[in-house]
Amino acid sequence: MEYQFAKRMSNVKASAIREILKATADPNMISFAGGNPSAEAFPVKEIEKISADLLKNEPISILQYGITEGDQELLREATKFFNRYEQVTKDGDQMIITSGSQQIMEFAAKTLCNEGDVVICENPSFLGALNAFKSLGAVLRGIEYKDGQLDLEDLKQALSMEPRPKFMYLIPNFQNPTGMTMSLEVRKEVLALAKEYGVLILEDNPYGDLRFAGEAVPSIKSMDEDSLVIYAASLSKIIAPGMRIACCIAPQAIIQKMTVAKQASDVHSNLWAQKVMARYLHDYDMDAHIDRISMIYKKKCHLMVDEMKKHFHPSIQYTIPTGGMFIWVTLPESIDMLTFVKKALEKNVAVVPGNAFLDDDSKECHSFRMNYSTPTDEKIIEGVQILGELTYEMSKISS
Amino acid sequence: MEYQFAKRMSNVKASAIREILKATADPNMISFAGGNPSAEAFPVKEIEKISADLLKNEPISILQYGITEGDQELLREATKFFNRYEQVTKDGDQMIITSGSQQIMEFAAKTLCNEGDVVICENPSFLGALNAFKSLGAVLRGIEYKDGQLDLEDLKQALSMEPRPKFMYLIPNFQNPTGMTMSLEVRKEVLALAKEYGVLILEDNPYGDLRFAGEAVPSIKSMDEDSLVIYAASLSKIIAPGMRIACCIAPQAIIQKMTVAKQASDVHSNLWAQKVMARYLHDYDMDAHIDRISMIYKKKCHLMVDEMKKHFHPSIQYTIPTGGMFIWVTLPESIDMLTFVKKALEKNVAVVPGNAFLDDDSKECHSFRMNYSTPTDEKIIEGVQILGELTYEMSKISS
Repeated sequence: MEYQFAKRMSNVKASAIREILKATADPNMISFAGGNPSAEAFPVKEIEKISADLLKNEPISILQYGITEGDQELLREATKFFNRYEQVTKDGDQMIITSGSQQIMEFAAKTLCNEGDVVICENPSFLGALNAFKSLGAVLRGIEYKDGQLDLEDLKQALSMEPRPKFMYLIPNFQNPTGMTMSLEVRKEVLALAKEYGVLILEDNPYGDLRFAGEAVPSIKSMDEDSLVIYAASLSKIIAPGMRIACCIAPQAIIQKMTVAKQASDVHSNLWAQKVMARYLHDYDMDAHIDRISMIYKKKCHLMVDEMKKHFHPSIQYTIPTGGMFIWVTLPESIDMLTFVKKALEKNVAVVPGNAFLDDDSKECHSFRMNYSTPTDEKIIEGVQILGELTYEMSKISS
Repeated sequence: MEYQFAKRMSNVKASAIREILKATADPNMISFAGGNPSAEAFPVKEIEKISADLLKNEPISILQYGITEGDQELLREATKFFNRYEQVTKDGDQMIITSGSQQIMEFAAKTLCNEGDVVICENPSFLGALNAFKSLGAVLRGIEYKDGQLDLEDLKQALSMEPRPKFMYLIPNFQNPTGMTMSLEVRKEVLALAKEYGVLILEDNPYGDLRFAGEAVPSIKSMDEDSLVIYAASLSKIIAPGMRIACCIAPQAIIQKMTVAKQASDVHSNLWAQKVMARYLHDYDMDAHIDRISMIYKKKCHLMVDEMKKHFHPSIQYTIPTGGMFIWVTLPESIDMLTFVKKALEKNVAVVPGNAFLDDDSKECHSFRMNYSTPTDEKIIEGVQILGELTYEMSKISS
């Protein structure tokens, strides 16, 4: 039988990362392609203890149907936690617990975008979010970077073009894939532009707590006094992603629409995960835990950068992150990026081609993404050396 | 700020059941409005044991990111389980694990329906599924019942009308809300019509295993040799709904599209729940467990029906289920159903008005849904007596 699929799905491809990750199933492959937290970063013993207590003392609260908005205990604990250093929950805001923050991106597009509506995104940006928007028929309008910050002139132009965009999707902290952080000035400008043009902001902040150098920059949500920002806060990167728990904080009218969307999707998020998260936030010192895992990532990041400095051809440029999980590497124009990535894969090192993160992946791109949170130290040393040799090899060919 | 929401969401209301369930938060309320499994039906001790083992011996497999299609172990065990009495997995089929079977309904509409495309449903049918279809812009075309079976003439007409429907959504076993089961003859006819008109069937089977009288009827999927059926199998009603785990079995091309949809939605289902389900299916005697819980529901169903026989006015009609969780009650035309439901709520008994389950809830309806799986025996006796008095009271007024 020949199936006729919906038009909205035709622009969404199986993720390029996913295809590369399949290759990394080979145990000989050194993968810098993922975006997984380090296995050392999970609070295993604490989760084991909390889970045992819950299943012994209140199993029905985990096994029975729950409420769509989320477990009351987690809503309370997460509100406390995400507001501990800055006020992201404003008067008239509400929270919904979602099955990972990707679901927030999907619900934002589902509740706000008609087919053909425009969503503004950074160029490059998180592939999963871009696919979520496209899967609801939204059209992407990418904003370029200029001198390491979002190009505000380009943004202004994108905001004033017809059709007017529905929202701007931004990852201000340790952006995926570039690892870059938006400056306070740019955040203020972006918020002012949102107000001027009456366009919402979807602020995605999965990595904000994973800072290992420099000072925290206030979230855009914390500066918003006009109910313009939908804030996506995740527990995946700081507790555990397999539990699929994130929190969306936004004006009540938006959360109510998202609640209807969630009722028609997965009804509610897994209750074991919600309850374990609530107890973990309540019973343990989250800041001490975050300090501990940030130090893991700091060490891994420094190792990777140091090895890159040693082994990469001097013509190769890359970001030096102060948090998060990713390094964005840019090759000179003389080296074809896709050929480089393919050759690296042949040498058993996987990285993600940068064009996968663009609003249009057929655009020319000289960059690729490297991840330091997942591989072991030994693999980082070995893999960077192989990539380094390849940078010299391909520079020679091209010169 | 005035928000402009997507058109697709405007037809999806917060569930009528949900609003009634809010009223049932009052501890004095006797609720026959839910659809929850009985708390006695959960294999609490077994889940506690499996969970402890998993968190002790392989915590990373639960806490790290997983694969979109589902955990390999659960895919294997669920395939074995759902094929144990009939072959629902055909050559060229594949399985995806979803976050509850509602997500299968959403993905079916998301991958198959463009805005305005028609989905055929039973009239009445499961509200959550109807909302999932509407939330993707699908338009419902309801098929009436005739003598306790789907009216095949009405179905033929609906299949031949333009625009041609994309799929038919059917719950052949112990249907929600009516509790009725589709006969083998009607199943065969429906499958033949699907083939004749080239229209897919989405067969939802959450209650099939909860049979406590009569003989099992083969699923439509088991009879399909033309890759026409998408089969939704759930573990919510036979293990635990709070875990949010269901399985979709369908031709590979459809599962692949659903996988892309899931990647852009919640990435993968909660891994703890997937692993616990896999081990439960592997380590324990599921048929013995199902026998045990079916006996719980049989007892509760008989109690409710017996009490209804005793207390309800003879003009009231109702289905007598042989499985599942619901009884469908039909009032004589002289009694206004919505007034009856409202008066019952004032007397602290909650049932769900039948129009909530129609393709168009403004249609006239004389029925309501009662659930026997959730309330205690005492509440069943007390609540039915109150409803019984109300049937007499309102029959008097109307005569």
